[in-house]
Amino acid sequence: VSQDAAGPSLSRTVFVFDCRLERSNAGGNEKKVESGGISFLEFRKTVCQVFGIAPEENFVITTTARKSITDHSFDCSGGTEEWMELGIEILFEKQGGVMQTADLEVDAMAAFGQREVEWPVEAQTLHVLTLRPLKILLNRSKSGEIQDGSTLYLLQSVDQILPSAIRERIEFLPHYDTLVKSGMYEYYASEGQKSLPFAFAELIDNSLSATSHISGVRSIDLRCLFDESQGKPAIAVIDNGRGMTSKQLNNWAVYRLSKFTRRDQEFESDHSGYVRPAPVARSLNSDISYFGVGGKQAVFYIGQATRMISKPASSLDAHELLLSKEDFEKKEKNKEAIYSGFIRNRKPGDSSHITSDDERFLHSLVKEEKNKESFTAVVITGIHTDHMQYLKNNFHLWTRELAHVYHYYIHGPKGNDAKASVKDTGPVQKIDIQISMFEKGKVPKVINLRDVKDDMQTLYNSSSADSFEFVTHVDGDGVVEGVIRYHPFLYDRETYPEDPIGLSSKSDEDDDDSMLSEKGGRGKRPIFECFWNGRLIPYTTVEDFEWCSTSKKRGPIPEECLNRISGVLFTNDKFEVSTNKLTFMDLELRLKDKDTIFTRVINGQEQRVKIYREFALWLKECHEKFDKQIKFSGFKGIMTRTDI
Amino acid sequence: VSQDAAGPSLSRTVFVFDCRLERSNAGGNEKKVESGGISFLEFRKTVCQVFGIAPEENFVITTTARKSITDHSFDCSGGTEEWMELGIEILFEKQGGVMQTADLEVDAMAAFGQREVEWPVEAQTLHVLTLRPLKILLNRSKSGEIQDGSTLYLLQSVDQILPSAIRERIEFLPHYDTLVKSGMYEYYASEGQKSLPFAFAELIDNSLSATSHISGVRSIDLRCLFDESQGKPAIAVIDNGRGMTSKQLNNWAVYRLSKFTRRDQEFESDHSGYVRPAPVARSLNSDISYFGVGGKQAVFYIGQATRMISKPASSLDAHELLLSKEDFEKKEKNKEAIYSGFIRNRKPGDSSHITSDDERFLHSLVKEEKNKESFTAVVITGIHTDHMQYLKNNFHLWTRELAHVYHYYIHGPKGNDAKASVKDTGPVQKIDIQISMFEKGKVPKVINLRDVKDDMQTLYNSSSADSFEFVTHVDGDGVVEGVIRYHPFLYDRETYPEDPIGLSSKSDEDDDDSMLSEKGGRGKRPIFECFWNGRLIPYTTVEDFEWCSTSKKRGPIPEECLNRISGVLFTNDKFEVSTNKLTFMDLELRLKDKDTIFTRVINGQEQRVKIYREFALWLKECHEKFDKQIKFSGFKGIMTRTDI
Ligand SMILES: Nc1ncnc2c1ncn2[C@@H]1O[C@H](COP(=O)(O)OP(=O)(O)OP(=O)(O)O)[C@@H](O)[C@H]1O
Ligand SMILES: Nc1ncnc2c1ncn2[C@@H]1O[C@H](COP(=O)(O)OP(=O)(O)OP(=O)(O)O)[C@@H](O)[C@H]1O
Ligand SMILES: [Mg+2]
Ligand SMILES: [Mg+2]
Repeated sequence: VSQDAAGPSLSRTVFVFDCRLERSNAGGNEKKVESGGISFLEFRKTVCQVFGIAPEENFVITTTARKSITDHSFDCSGGTEEWMELGIEILFEKQGGVMQTADLEVDAMAAFGQREVEWPVEAQTLHVLTLRPLKILLNRSKSGEIQDGSTLYLLQSVDQILPSAIRERIEFLPHYDTLVKSGMYEYYASEGQKSLPFAFAELIDNSLSATSHISGVRSIDLRCLFDESQGKPAIAVIDNGRGMTSKQLNNWAVYRLSKFTRRDQEFESDHSGYVRPAPVARSLNSDISYFGVGGKQAVFYIGQATRMISKPASSLDAHELLLSKEDFEKKEKNKEAIYSGFIRNRKPGDSSHITSDDERFLHSLVKEEKNKESFTAVVITGIHTDHMQYLKNNFHLWTRELAHVYHYYIHGPKGNDAKASVKDTGPVQKIDIQISMFEKGKVPKVINLRDVKDDMQTLYNSSSADSFEFVTHVDGDGVVEGVIRYHPFLYDRETYPEDPIGLSSKSDEDDDDSMLSEKGGRGKRPIFECFWNGRLIPYTTVEDFEWCSTSKKRGPIPEECLNRISGVLFTNDKFEVSTNKLTFMDLELRLKDKDTIFTRVINGQEQRVKIYREFALWLKECHEKFDKQIKFSGFKGIMTRTDI
Repeated sequence: VSQDAAGPSLSRTVFVFDCRLERSNAGGNEKKVESGGISFLEFRKTVCQVFGIAPEENFVITTTARKSITDHSFDCSGGTEEWMELGIEILFEKQGGVMQTADLEVDAMAAFGQREVEWPVEAQTLHVLTLRPLKILLNRSKSGEIQDGSTLYLLQSVDQILPSAIRERIEFLPHYDTLVKSGMYEYYASEGQKSLPFAFAELIDNSLSATSHISGVRSIDLRCLFDESQGKPAIAVIDNGRGMTSKQLNNWAVYRLSKFTRRDQEFESDHSGYVRPAPVARSLNSDISYFGVGGKQAVFYIGQATRMISKPASSLDAHELLLSKEDFEKKEKNKEAIYSGFIRNRKPGDSSHITSDDERFLHSLVKEEKNKESFTAVVITGIHTDHMQYLKNNFHLWTRELAHVYHYYIHGPKGNDAKASVKDTGPVQKIDIQISMFEKGKVPKVINLRDVKDDMQTLYNSSSADSFEFVTHVDGDGVVEGVIRYHPFLYDRETYPEDPIGLSSKSDEDDDDSMLSEKGGRGKRPIFECFWNGRLIPYTTVEDFEWCSTSKKRGPIPEECLNRISGVLFTNDKFEVSTNKLTFMDLELRLKDKDTIFTRVINGQEQRVKIYREFALWLKECHEKFDKQIKFSGFKGIMTRTDI
């Protein structure tokens, strides 16, 4: 009886504690005993030797669950498969070209090593083509009671009291679902599909971080490769960022290894000791990595397998890592190390390893590598089918959502003002986030997020007549910048923008009138949307602050003016967000602390004046200057002018 | 130069690929080379030998990042610490009792094994007390460029193109923050502290699962041990459930190993192949484990270290596992296996291993083990200080929250009706969830959750006059039971209960009048609270269904009647919840599918009639039977009756 060569080795070390009553210090009386590849009797003999026990003495060997080990339960195969080797099957060719097989039995085989074997067929006819081991599976160990590293007791009887405590060795590697399901229950919240854009955002975040050093065009390219003629559906996010060395790519796969923990010795060779970037306006620092989970959560939320391909400028080679649910399952089944794998280092542009038709599209994608000094491509396959339907049917919706998330990265700290005639072409105007959708037989849909014209921040910016800026510093290094905009009443309506998509579905039940005047602009909506390191945290809003709340009476200013303001808060990463970057942890709580002091900012200068008064004055001014409430009275009739 | 005994061994295997141009199939040309404990020159020599290269030939050895390996960068210590062994320090006692030390140098030591060593002091005076190795740290390898398992290239020059792809071995074990921070960003949502009860709920869930088989009293005991005279603050959750074998305790620590994945071979020895419990009323099946993360998330959200102590009836021994942030950090620093540890198997009641004063309280807690056939105790220490403040100051609040979560487990499928004179003492009345708070110099606060009288479900049940039951079956095995209750208008007020705590803080701004009549009972609140496997999912509510919505006009029934209903939905686990069990994923979406058919239930019988009509009839009846709207008209004055 021996073991399949492909399985784990026969070695099985167990830790045996002598816990028989006479020995008082069982804990210190531990011995390492090799138990692989031998029978229970042999094992018992070894134990007797090691502990100096006479073989005729009475004792039991048990697991720590006090299960007595017997010849039956002592599985010498180390808890895996047991094979009976029967011999070798020989396929040979007789002189006339006739194929024939013959079995070389195990007894004969034993002599084989000495080359004195008696061949089962006449020697002169033998032209051996193949040799195949002949064996049968005796037993696939079910219980694996005793495994490499198991702890065993020597006891007088199974139900004997332990004379002293025993330390049992254990392993508790996280299950691979830690990675595979990490995103599954993370992007829930708003019931259903709307969270998919936020999974994409994690990948775009990573690309923003990776391109932060580029002074030219930062290019982030999200492609939905849904053309079946090119293979199975896939989603690729490709950037021209700094790429990853193979060590960094390795670290990418380490769940929860963040830029902060990465400074530790173990991962030092990745040379990425984290340096906090200098403060910039609106915290648009592209430093959006934080927890070491985003990428993994996102790719496994979107699909079942991911190919990370990357090349840093410093490397001549492209590095490629494939992580897949299927692969994890296979490793578990084969009892291989779950968190071991391979990175493929290869020539840029070399797609010779892609042999499956399902991934045909990869050939052209890999070919693009040749023109790039550095890049990262995240290629997700096994796309969940409901995601695919959603992405195909709601292209406008989710690209608009992404334009909202990255509004200030795309348009710069002042945001997009569609009505402005001269466009601000400052330095941050160079982030190209391009989304494209390829479907069979259709013209590809392509949009640069900068060209989205109906995301909420664009609507707010375009409809505002004036803005009020402020800042607050919390606990030393927490910074929140804020902007409040005034959306005046013009002639016959409020200009505070309605969400053209978000609200239309909800307003069914309320009133069918799309005019907003009677709701007073903002209505019950909170004032502030909140951005963290420059990107939207979509599920956290802040209602108001005391100094800009509707609840306070403000003398001469009409109440509805307070419903004509929208606002944005920009925090740096001293404010915590949840790992899926969907919510702030305690932003509102910290800002509403009574010690928080808000300061108005005019032309970049902090003003040392009471914010409450400043704001009230600004609001009054806005009302007087911008609101144009015209009442037509004394209706006489309609007249057509013929003179113009 | 040798290595610290405690550190990793000197062995360092590297994988070398010959990638020089002339070899066309570099990928297949991989050799394993031992590189530990030798110099770079020796290593190069070995490489030449292994690949059959003449030593004078020109080639470079590089890392996969193409960093050329030189004598300088070739760190023979395997990337860890390098020690110079100097000898042994001997502490000895001279005949007169005088202590003295002497050093046995390394040369002498070499002879030590042969017992021919020349002692540095006169032999006759020697009474050796201790021997201590004398060594100095030469070098703590900074870069660890080459580690055990590293992949290296043989190249003609550093910038040579790879002739073919190379497979580089990697490891990507999840960082220990996977466990330690798992809860941190999970219990956020409602800004601030309110989520702590829901971390407790994860532990109570586990205890409910573990006690599901008990026909007597199921006892779950949550103790806040905040009496400083007994040690540092701790929180213990103790149940009389089935306990865990050491293997099951081991599995407890495996992140993401759930009852479903546990069926896999690797963990089979835990014998816990999952069997779905039979359906029961309100899905009160105590089968609340699902993801394999709850316990870990909860304990590390609450504190920094956890001692899990457990004993199944089948075991004579108690099993104890300590998991702590500190320990993880130590293991990382010492480059030990992060996910290896020890379970302590010991006599129940034996607390001799507790030596730290900080954990004094453990002695009495461990002593309690003696009376129990089986139990589990989760003892959390390193309690985060803000949690402690919250728990001390809001005892009523958070115990009430827990009473809400487990209302139907505590009170049975019909819930608690405080006004009912005869209490239902059915079988489920036996779950004792007891919460206690111990503080120094104070009388302990103790409450059995069953005695909480102001949790919302108790208020709803107590104030309802009648109820309407229904059920729906979704996608085959998804079951949702529902109850709608009628809270009539009585004399001068609505009886629909106000949340005595939740709303008081919010209503500040609205109106100060605590009467509800003008709000019409429920007001804008959603109708349904939602329970999953019998326990509350606190952040998901369901507004209404079409057939019970306020938006529909219902002929003769006054509109405000629809504001006099409250409701509960009970789902089984065919409806998904988030890993922190705070929200349902898509309950509302699935229930509002147009194919969902609701059926009224009367006395346990499903009625095959239109739910819309049934409900309208019931509502009308409730209104006519229970609403007592009395108008006093024609006030004449107050008169004191003297005749009674
Ligand atoms: N497109 C990319 N280009 C270069 N490096 C990348 C890219 N994407 C990921 N990485 C590297 O992989 C690491 C892990 O990415 P991942 O998104 O999983 O976590 P994170 O960004 O560190 O933290 P977070 O959880 O906040 O996203 C990143 O820190 C970064 O070093
Ligand atoms: N009090 C207890 N008594 C007995 N076994 C327990 C107890 N607490 C935990 N366990 C065991 O440990 C396992 C892991 O618990 P944990 O709460 O971390 O995850 P889970 O309950 O399996 O899933 P979920 O993420 O839904 O909580 C449980 O499945 C159960 O087998
Ligand atoms: Mg990231
Ligand atoms: Mg649990």
